[in-house]
Amino acid sequence: MQNEDKYHFLSKINSPADLKEINLKDLPQVAEELRNFIIEASSVNPAHFGASLGVVELTVALHYVFNTPYDLLVWDVGHQAYGHKILTGRRDVFHTNRNLNGISGFPSPFESEYDSFGVGHSSTSISAALGMAVAAKLNNEKRQTIAVIGDGSLTGGMAFEGLNNTAATRSNVLIVLNDNKIAIDENAGALKEYLTDIATSKTYNRVKDDVWNFLGRLSKLGVDVQGFTQKIDNAIKSIIMRNSNLFESLDIRYFGPVDGHDVILLTRLFEDIKDIPGPKLLHIITKKGKGFKQAEQNQTLWHAAPGKFDIETGRIICSENNENEQPQKFQDIFGDAIVELAEKNNKIIAITPAMLTGSSLVKMSKEFPDRCFDVGIAEQHAVTFSAGLAKQGMIPFCNIYSSFAQRAYDQIIHDVALQKLHVVFCFDRAGLVGNDGATHHGAFDLSFMRCIPNMVISAPRDEFQLRDLMYTAQLEKNNFPFAIRYPRGNSLYPKSEIEFHELKIGKGKCLHKGENIAIITIGTAGNIALNAIKILKEENLNISVYDMLFLKPLDFDLLHEVFSSHDYIITIEDNTIIGGLGSAIMEFAVENDYKIKVDRMGIPDRFIEHAKQDELIALCNYDTESIIKKVKKVAEKFC
Amino acid sequence: MQNEDKYHFLSKINSPADLKEINLKDLPQVAEELRNFIIEASSVNPAHFGASLGVVELTVALHYVFNTPYDLLVWDVGHQAYGHKILTGRRDVFHTNRNLNGISGFPSPFESEYDSFGVGHSSTSISAALGMAVAAKLNNEKRQTIAVIGDGSLTGGMAFEGLNNTAATRSNVLIVLNDNKIAIDENAGALKEYLTDIATSKTYNRVKDDVWNFLGRLSKLGVDVQGFTQKIDNAIKSIIMRNSNLFESLDIRYFGPVDGHDVILLTRLFEDIKDIPGPKLLHIITKKGKGFKQAEQNQTLWHAAPGKFDIETGRIICSENNENEQPQKFQDIFGDAIVELAEKNNKIIAITPAMLTGSSLVKMSKEFPDRCFDVGIAEQHAVTFSAGLAKQGMIPFCNIYSSFAQRAYDQIIHDVALQKLHVVFCFDRAGLVGNDGATHHGAFDLSFMRCIPNMVISAPRDEFQLRDLMYTAQLEKNNFPFAIRYPRGNSLYPKSEIEFHELKIGKGKCLHKGENIAIITIGTAGNIALNAIKILKEENLNISVYDMLFLKPLDFDLLHEVFSSHDYIITIEDNTIIGGLGSAIMEFAVENDYKIKVDRMGIPDRFIEHAKQDELIALCNYDTESIIKKVKKVAEKFC
Repeated sequence: MQNEDKYHFLSKINSPADLKEINLKDLPQVAEELRNFIIEASSVNPAHFGASLGVVELTVALHYVFNTPYDLLVWDVGHQAYGHKILTGRRDVFHTNRNLNGISGFPSPFESEYDSFGVGHSSTSISAALGMAVAAKLNNEKRQTIAVIGDGSLTGGMAFEGLNNTAATRSNVLIVLNDNKIAIDENAGALKEYLTDIATSKTYNRVKDDVWNFLGRLSKLGVDVQGFTQKIDNAIKSIIMRNSNLFESLDIRYFGPVDGHDVILLTRLFEDIKDIPGPKLLHIITKKGKGFKQAEQNQTLWHAAPGKFDIETGRIICSENNENEQPQKFQDIFGDAIVELAEKNNKIIAITPAMLTGSSLVKMSKEFPDRCFDVGIAEQHAVTFSAGLAKQGMIPFCNIYSSFAQRAYDQIIHDVALQKLHVVFCFDRAGLVGNDGATHHGAFDLSFMRCIPNMVISAPRDEFQLRDLMYTAQLEKNNFPFAIRYPRGNSLYPKSEIEFHELKIGKGKCLHKGENIAIITIGTAGNIALNAIKILKEENLNISVYDMLFLKPLDFDLLHEVFSSHDYIITIEDNTIIGGLGSAIMEFAVENDYKIKVDRMGIPDRFIEHAKQDELIALCNYDTESIIKKVKKVAEKFC
Repeated sequence: MQNEDKYHFLSKINSPADLKEINLKDLPQVAEELRNFIIEASSVNPAHFGASLGVVELTVALHYVFNTPYDLLVWDVGHQAYGHKILTGRRDVFHTNRNLNGISGFPSPFESEYDSFGVGHSSTSISAALGMAVAAKLNNEKRQTIAVIGDGSLTGGMAFEGLNNTAATRSNVLIVLNDNKIAIDENAGALKEYLTDIATSKTYNRVKDDVWNFLGRLSKLGVDVQGFTQKIDNAIKSIIMRNSNLFESLDIRYFGPVDGHDVILLTRLFEDIKDIPGPKLLHIITKKGKGFKQAEQNQTLWHAAPGKFDIETGRIICSENNENEQPQKFQDIFGDAIVELAEKNNKIIAITPAMLTGSSLVKMSKEFPDRCFDVGIAEQHAVTFSAGLAKQGMIPFCNIYSSFAQRAYDQIIHDVALQKLHVVFCFDRAGLVGNDGATHHGAFDLSFMRCIPNMVISAPRDEFQLRDLMYTAQLEKNNFPFAIRYPRGNSLYPKSEIEFHELKIGKGKCLHKGENIAIITIGTAGNIALNAIKILKEENLNISVYDMLFLKPLDFDLLHEVFSSHDYIITIEDNTIIGGLGSAIMEFAVENDYKIKVDRMGIPDRFIEHAKQDELIALCNYDTESIIKKVKKVAEKFC
């Protein structure tokens, strides 16, 4: 650690034991240093940090009071856990956060015993903590179990399932509700209003007013009510706390709301609360991005640092390229196209579960506020809500990140596919997503979608295909479930005006006709294949490349053509090789008696860690280099 | 309709329009007739009927007041909709309920325009109704949208997501909370206590007491409080209704609780409530099985009629076979085995999402009450709760019906597989389940599980294998995710004492060694294959049959043996043919350059309707007959 002055306390904290040596009065200073450390590290290694800045005091207080890792701390979603990582022995490797072979951006039990549970998706912490608490009880251990959950995560249905069951089992679980009024975008739903209502004591004041009016009437009868004021106040407060509270109504003891940035107050509260048996919830109010002005002011932009930045000014250090000449992001192509389509087709509705910005739906929400719904972190509801819309003639575009779509799998099957409803699923962040790592890769959607009847499944290779797929999907005649999956990151070209064209459903195409060996791809894997064959051509290997565009229905005519005119087939997909494109092509080969070798490239059958997208694709051996290598090897025999 | 006297009113009701012609005062009689009709029909055609008996008055009132099908009625889960079906033109076909080519046991838009949304899985109604309400608003239609949801379904997280979003959009959705304190088994969770609390006015009384005590102190000061009693009562009631109510706290107007068996009261309430804008909830108290004594007394047994029964006595009309000589149900084999295993291994915990009886966990819950958890209708929580238990060294057996496991897909991937936790998944009701039909078939689990890394996937053929798989799965050394899927219905033999044996993971076996043609199976499909080859043998066709037992890892050694010694392979599985066993075998064939035809039998790529299990297997062409036919045809060329 270089700057010992700057990090007077922090530089000596190598585990929570060191933290516990520090005087209570010095904890604000520790929090300050921890905050600065996170900002400094993120300025050169951009990462999620808004949430972590908001819980610096909470993190210090938790590790100061509780006996981690014996006491079990579960961080919901987990990108709020940077401070936790730094205090638990990972300060000196924190600069490797989210990088290849570096530490994960989320808690991971494989990384540290202090990370009691792997998290990445939202709303899991209460259920996991309850399981741990029940295990501790059965093992006769006196462990404390703490779940830290944001108000955004609390809108996820499984958090409610966890609350309901935690209350019923009466287990010793402490839930810390970190209420910052925001997930990535501002939170949606009635729960937010409710929490604000508690926090600003509207309810309390309203009841007080009612009783006050009643007492007014009493005083007209000559009763001196002045002396009772304080007592009434207390009585009412206790009535409200006991009766009118969502959590208390589920029989979970509620404490708060309190200032989540007062570290000394938090330590005292934890000391008081920790020995109270049964489920309990402490409601703390925090500010996302706390302590970094730009992040406090624009919490959505700074949810994750948008790039390397100058600590003093908050200015993003731009690369030299002109923004307008950069290829467009797939999410933005979607975001522009849906507005253009919605202008012409008033049946189109956009739905997102809390990813208005991430899915580039901000424009839609501004141009068509009545036709754009951010339903909160609630993927299940998002899909069935879409099904209801479709049942009554609307054409919902339900946009969900691929890995989060796993949350709505039953609803996709039961509420959409079974009823053959005209819902357009746009699965953003499909394939390997990069630095977010194992929890966030959209590695399975081609496989888990392919087995669902009635489903059209497609994946664009570029902006033209994405736009045309969206156009095709919303045509009245195509009134069936239609999935479009596309990756995180950039398409091929800078933004320009392009027209929509109808695509023939289930029709693939030949991108390059070569000889002997054919590469069959779907989605952006086609671009990698094109790069590879360009280089191979220089070595006089003329390889065919086909883009299926649709995984389902498969273009059997095209496949017959491919199989009749080549001796070796390579499939490439940005998805697990089990059950997706490669499997479908193998099924075709066997069913049609083609005795030709098919070789699958794609994500192998293991969970893939974090690193840059390119690095991961190379790790998974379907980058340009790997394709070239494979083709050359095969060519020895088949060309 | 035969008995015009007995069904004086009902016999003339062919649509809700006919119902509306009847005088309000006669509605109790209509309800009575409807109830009797359901009981009579169910006595000869056993079906779910407990829930439908409980909502007879509600059903009559809804169709009396609302303008269905223009007004949209969504029945959560849907097996409460028998009365609805009978009143909406399906009285005379009701005897075909759940039978082949008959009406579905659940609402289905393909069957009637009165079934506004397909339902079968729980907790979807609020989300679907909200989608419909939003569509109506955008279409400038004045439709009413009503979701009828049980208190059991309300524990499902997606119901909460729906409530949260409904409140936020301020749409005109009426939620009828049908509170009968029971799903199939008695409801679990804090929510039940809460609803009971409202219903019995404990909260109300508690607040009243507090204020009363306060007033007592006032009266000591000489104030006459008698005159204020009534006013205070009203004031408090309004405060409570506004502030201390779970639904009101989410900004949904709450009405009730009221007697759900008072049909005239219900019609009046609906008339009053229906024009109040915004989201609102009417809480009605009903009795499941109402009007049929046996069903009221044993609601779990009579959730669905356990067989044909005598209407007067409620006695089940037994078949002549001796119960003890009947083959055991798979669920009971599981239920006995887990208790035996739990006796020896104190780490074993059982978890069920509201299927204590259906999964035969009642015995476990009695013998090990601390180690058996019914978490309510909450599949997501069930899995992550299991993950938490496993993380702390327990060995949870998480038992979920296959089609409901779709609800927990993300949790299986993200919370169990990714963390390599020792959770044993027991997927009951895998494959075609029979009369429950399309929503309930476990048709996809082999496919959606196979693409998940770190997962062992198995399927027993009989009681020996199920017991041995369970035994093997709980061994400390096998501390990874382990899935066992087994079907609804009977195994092969009557109950007897059998020992546990350890199985080698990923090891299949040859059931019969024949020639030329090999059938490769998994699970109970192996028994169908054995039946078929016995008959084929009589025609001098000696066909091999292999039982893989494990879909993952696959027994490559065995497969090499099979492929080296046969000319034609047939795969059979009780799962969609896309992505499951057949696909895995095809992948093996192609990868290993076996130029042998592989022919998949199993559930085709479409949703399968309702009928008896055997009928459906025949419909899907993997019954004994179909196998024989296929083999004979293939044998012409290959034998």
